[in-house]
Amino acid sequence: MEIKEIGEFGLIKLLAEGIKLDPNRVVLGIGDDAAVLKQDGSKLLLATTDTMTEGIHFLFSTTSPEQLGYKSLTVNVSDIAAMGGLPTAALVSLTLPKKIECNWVNSLYRGIKEACNVYGVNLVGGDTVSSLGGITLTVTLLGEVEPDCLIRRSGAKPGDLLGVTGPLGGSAAGLRLLSLELNRDLKGAEAALARHLKPEARLWAGRNLAKTGKVHSLNDISDGLCSEVLEIAEASGVGVVLNARDIPVDPAAWEIAEYTGDDPLDWALYGGEDYELVFSFSPEGKGEIEAALAEAGCSLRIIGEIVRDREKKFINFPDGRLRPLKALGYNHFN
Amino acid sequence: MEIKEIGEFGLIKLLAEGIKLDPNRVVLGIGDDAAVLKQDGSKLLLATTDTMTEGIHFLFSTTSPEQLGYKSLTVNVSDIAAMGGLPTAALVSLTLPKKIECNWVNSLYRGIKEACNVYGVNLVGGDTVSSLGGITLTVTLLGEVEPDCLIRRSGAKPGDLLGVTGPLGGSAAGLRLLSLELNRDLKGAEAALARHLKPEARLWAGRNLAKTGKVHSLNDISDGLCSEVLEIAEASGVGVVLNARDIPVDPAAWEIAEYTGDDPLDWALYGGEDYELVFSFSPEGKGEIEAALAEAGCSLRIIGEIVRDREKKFINFPDGRLRPLKALGYNHFN
Repeated sequence: MEIKEIGEFGLIKLLAEGIKLDPNRVVLGIGDDAAVLKQDGSKLLLATTDTMTEGIHFLFSTTSPEQLGYKSLTVNVSDIAAMGGLPTAALVSLTLPKKIECNWVNSLYRGIKEACNVYGVNLVGGDTVSSLGGITLTVTLLGEVEPDCLIRRSGAKPGDLLGVTGPLGGSAAGLRLLSLELNRDLKGAEAALARHLKPEARLWAGRNLAKTGKVHSLNDISDGLCSEVLEIAEASGVGVVLNARDIPVDPAAWEIAEYTGDDPLDWALYGGEDYELVFSFSPEGKGEIEAALAEAGCSLRIIGEIVRDREKKFINFPDGRLRPLKALGYNHFN
Repeated sequence: MEIKEIGEFGLIKLLAEGIKLDPNRVVLGIGDDAAVLKQDGSKLLLATTDTMTEGIHFLFSTTSPEQLGYKSLTVNVSDIAAMGGLPTAALVSLTLPKKIECNWVNSLYRGIKEACNVYGVNLVGGDTVSSLGGITLTVTLLGEVEPDCLIRRSGAKPGDLLGVTGPLGGSAAGLRLLSLELNRDLKGAEAALARHLKPEARLWAGRNLAKTGKVHSLNDISDGLCSEVLEIAEASGVGVVLNARDIPVDPAAWEIAEYTGDDPLDWALYGGEDYELVFSFSPEGKGEIEAALAEAGCSLRIIGEIVRDREKKFINFPDGRLRPLKALGYNHFN
């Protein structure tokens, strides 16, 4: 059987089988945004890794090396933010064709170093090896979090409200623009492309949310809102109802959709790579959470609620239709 | 300018330029076997990463997936051992062609999990993505070490003796056997192939060496003995003299060399991937070091000494010839 028959998530399940973990060391292994380890100090150690491959995650022709470098760090910072932590140090592994230009690699590292400065990350190591194929870039990011600030995806409780930190669908609109080779001067194009090619992580929003003590579950939106919300619901053993009219669709997505004829709500629900945070919280914490997000320069958008019935996972449309929640994000092996 | 013009080490130098590190957090960044970070407990955090690419580090046709998985962990454990530490947790990033068989990936992970069990490593995370090219496997390994057990490569002192933990050249002999497609039934072939395809890390030797407090510098032999010894000398600002007749050449290398006509000493000096440890120590510690290595199942071989004159870096042959020490190991971009 080829792996495309079981898909990315089937593969991860297969690989995770039979792994023995030392409970004195490991708080969380495979299955959240980052691994969580005990160390002998008061803080927990966080570790996460993300790989970007040429032709799959990026095209040489549409991404500048600076953007690629910056994004490779950002997507990992977003995973640390989704645990309530702060990043500390990164290791970068790079496979490169021998014929690549020094200038290109230098620019890639300029982007990596810029992101390190923005997010307070120490670039401490890595590996550079040659490749017979294309470019592969793997960033492993370490971080730390106080035990009472750690937020898992598995803590959602019935009655929780579901919030996001910002507009969605802009990154998918940018990707669509690139894939159709549309004019980059279109209205909304600059914003959508920036969202896709050089996203930012909601690090301070995640930190501030964690410090309120009111947030029960948290994911970053890398694979698409519905996919992330389903992960929270499944890990927490609860159901969830999203309200379509409350999803904050990125204005750039509306603008691009006028040209492409797509539904911008689909981009917001399934597109991914917006790197906003989605989280559940007790309703009485709403004021504190609004203040925490305002301090981090973003605002609370309530998009649904957590329910007790774990079979109940759907989106509620203004016309009364209910659609089941589906994880339609990118799957690497389907 | 293409990167093959500046080579692997020129590239690393280029990439490391202008990196700002937080001295309150980072003890060692790029430039040793692993990065060393302060955390709020009493131990230091170690982090290292190694990438293996198809066609460069391994061939689909000559390496089994179990061997590849096992080796991908081992080479990282060896880096942690070379700091005097113990490994704690690993993250594995994998790029795979979509058409690959589940069985192959399962076997790869069987090898990874076996090595995790052998070396006491928790497999806590990773990433699996598709690739348009071949297979790339990046393992990031975390570890820890007490501050007084940390051994850098920069601590060698004039008058130190230079030791290795075991025979060298076997891995290069195995690689030669594979590249010539020689009969695997040759005398010495099984040992040489095992050495190349499924090496072990000298974890307990490194730990025991660190605990003696007599070891001043330490590297693992991944790139070739001469390359590693030069790294120690250059990082420490000292010279070094190796005695050719004292280099412990692997018996399997002698046996394979009879068929291939190669010089097995060259394999021992330049071949690499034996994953023995090379270290310098104060002569008065010799007895303790012998005992420490015996407890870890290996023995001390003294191969040279550290000298004050940093220009003096050579190998002393029995016939009185002196050859300058050269790093002739594999260079990824030359």
